[in-house]
Amino acid sequence: MSAAPELHPDATPPVLRDRPEPGIVRLTLNRPKAYNSLSTGLMAALQAELDAIHADRSIKAVIIGAAGPGFCAGHDLKEIRANPGRQHYEALFRQCSLLMQSIVALPQPVIARVHGVASAAGCQLVASCDLAVAAETARFATPGVNIGLFCSTPMVALSRNVSRKHAMEMLLTGELLEARRAESIGLINRVVPEAALDEAALGFARTIAAKSPLTVKTGKEAFYRQLEMPLAQAYDYASRVMTENMLARDAEEGIDAFIGKREPHWEGR
Amino acid sequence: MSAAPELHPDATPPVLRDRPEPGIVRLTLNRPKAYNSLSTGLMAALQAELDAIHADRSIKAVIIGAAGPGFCAGHDLKEIRANPGRQHYEALFRQCSLLMQSIVALPQPVIARVHGVASAAGCQLVASCDLAVAAETARFATPGVNIGLFCSTPMVALSRNVSRKHAMEMLLTGELLEARRAESIGLINRVVPEAALDEAALGFARTIAAKSPLTVKTGKEAFYRQLEMPLAQAYDYASRVMTENMLARDAEEGIDAFIGKREPHWEGR
Amino acid sequence: MSAAPELHPDATPPVLRDRPEPGIVRLTLNRPKAYNSLSTGLMAALQAELDAIHADRSIKAVIIGAAGPGFCAGHDLKEIRANPGRQHYEALFRQCSLLMQSIVALPQPVIARVHGVASAAGCQLVASCDLAVAAETARFATPGVNIGLFCSTPMVALSRNVSRKHAMEMLLTGELLEARRAESIGLINRVVPEAALDEAALGFARTIAAKSPLTVKTGKEAFYRQLEMPLAQAYDYASRVMTENMLARDAEEGIDAFIGKREPHWEGR
Repeated sequence: MSAAPELHPDATPPVLRDRPEPGIVRLTLNRPKAYNSLSTGLMAALQAELDAIHADRSIKAVIIGAAGPGFCAGHDLKEIRANPGRQHYEALFRQCSLLMQSIVALPQPVIARVHGVASAAGCQLVASCDLAVAAETARFATPGVNIGLFCSTPMVALSRNVSRKHAMEMLLTGELLEARRAESIGLINRVVPEAALDEAALGFARTIAAKSPLTVKTGKEAFYRQLEMPLAQAYDYASRVMTENMLARDAEEGIDAFIGKREPHWEGR
Repeated sequence: MSAAPELHPDATPPVLRDRPEPGIVRLTLNRPKAYNSLSTGLMAALQAELDAIHADRSIKAVIIGAAGPGFCAGHDLKEIRANPGRQHYEALFRQCSLLMQSIVALPQPVIARVHGVASAAGCQLVASCDLAVAAETARFATPGVNIGLFCSTPMVALSRNVSRKHAMEMLLTGELLEARRAESIGLINRVVPEAALDEAALGFARTIAAKSPLTVKTGKEAFYRQLEMPLAQAYDYASRVMTENMLARDAEEGIDAFIGKREPHWEGR
Repeated sequence: MSAAPELHPDATPPVLRDRPEPGIVRLTLNRPKAYNSLSTGLMAALQAELDAIHADRSIKAVIIGAAGPGFCAGHDLKEIRANPGRQHYEALFRQCSLLMQSIVALPQPVIARVHGVASAAGCQLVASCDLAVAAETARFATPGVNIGLFCSTPMVALSRNVSRKHAMEMLLTGELLEARRAESIGLINRVVPEAALDEAALGFARTIAAKSPLTVKTGKEAFYRQLEMPLAQAYDYASRVMTENMLARDAEEGIDAFIGKREPHWEGR
């Protein structure tokens, strides 16, 4: 399952995959005893899954959840201390940064399904997803500062989700944020009772899976690209994207179905 | 009223204009049966009004509202399907992007007065205004994804108003947002009972119309420019703007009036 | 205390300094009768304090508060009118912009402790701090527009803290915002009863002072730098920062202490 060497091998695959409904893939971080900390093995497995999903046109939405008492505790500190040195660290952060950017670059939207604690790179994972739902009991933190290792890569994603004061409070204090607070500052989309969490994540995935996959892919890619442009350039770019989108079969079909008050039939992407 | 060809002529002018109070212009989208969808005719009329306002120093604040059951349903889909082809689409999105940027570039602040539904390019229009007030019953959406046409140009304005997770939820699900939610995520400034909507929009316009128009023009232009700069460059630029502003007659007058506890008398711009 | 000429000399030092607890410095704006307006003398004194703090490795967190009925009323308008001319204005805004950026560039986090009114450059001071706590009775405004002098330099900091619509409302209307509203739009972190304000500011400072100062310095600097980069570049940069951070003694110590369930002992920075 993983090309990279598994330094701390787990008994079971570190990432589980299932298809709860047509077009929807659910990935489950599966190192429950280690609070799903991101060992190089788990990251390699998650990267491999994302790479496969990228190329699979039958998949329209992805959910990332986790097994056990917490969502994700960030990097695997024992593994890090067992493999010291610049070369190892560089490889580790390169691997993790590539993983997070692969979520952003994935054609399919990714929904974080968060229960328990999401901390450090685990919080970054939530921030890197397109959408996020959390149980009322979920909590969020970037506590690296407590162990002398500032959450500098997690903050790249975090600070692009919430305001500066809010990001700085999390980063400088390392304290846990309740799910309601995470929702109010914009880090996550919805807070639901734990019993409704699966359905909330599936609900988003199902809604998205009913859309034209070409349209969703086009829009998601354009979203992140135009965000980094000045206004005039963003409009030039988005206007070109709209024109190409209009010329695709799915837009014609969608508009005709809308005008004709019938269901559209999407092509693939 | 419009230089561009009116492809779907309306019986009445597609944009109405009145001056409810001195210094305040109110533009009303006036294709009520079409939910004020942005036909090329309506966009040309609105562009012509904005161009005229740009040059008119007697106007100090602008309100954009709409007639009929909804604020604005976005592009006119029937017109789009009746005029297919790359050339038409390019012209359409260029026209619309220019229109939205004309609001940003207008010396006078623009206040959106929203009732009913503001969707797709209609939601973009709200996001492009400097301020926005909405009735409690107003709702907001970027539902292009439902018809195979991702709201890629609307998202340029939307994603510069609200956080990424919130923008993505609107763009990927296409679902309607209640006015209260739109207020809580920062898309609009105020939600009021429908009966108080006119007064809320006028209140903002009246407050702004009492200021020095030169000062307001200077500040609005600088606001959007400095937002696209790194911090040090933004401070260099804003410091130059402040110095020029200080050297203008209105700042001298304003400060003297403040120190002397009297009303200031503004020059024009 | 100040190298710059004091144009409106105060009877007492314009900035007071004390150390309420080890590692924590508290600066108090001390022109209470002038609502702590930022005379060139006060700004020079504050700049001198920040420069000294920058170089002092025994200081781990800074609180900026104010004496008298208000936090800070912005620039000293009487001083400005007594010293007209381009050269004076340029020097004034350069001095102020440097001061605000010195807070951002300080290795130690800075916490604004706000009571009463923070307006114009006083509001900018709050926005420029890393964290901010306010009394329930505190209020915030950028009212320059009322005196013909748009708050163009304050908006550089303000617009990097809150959404566009919220910033524009403050800038165009000049109206006072209640503390609760300032908290809900992201301008400040916490609102507390006036009696709890000192403890709230000290609480943040104490939490931060217990961390590794090298780690905090590294993270704060990286936070503001990566914010101005596109995503891929931000990740490259932050990954390098993480690697350097990992190679420092404090990260090793912090991780070992965490794994060993003991308190870490930090080196200096």
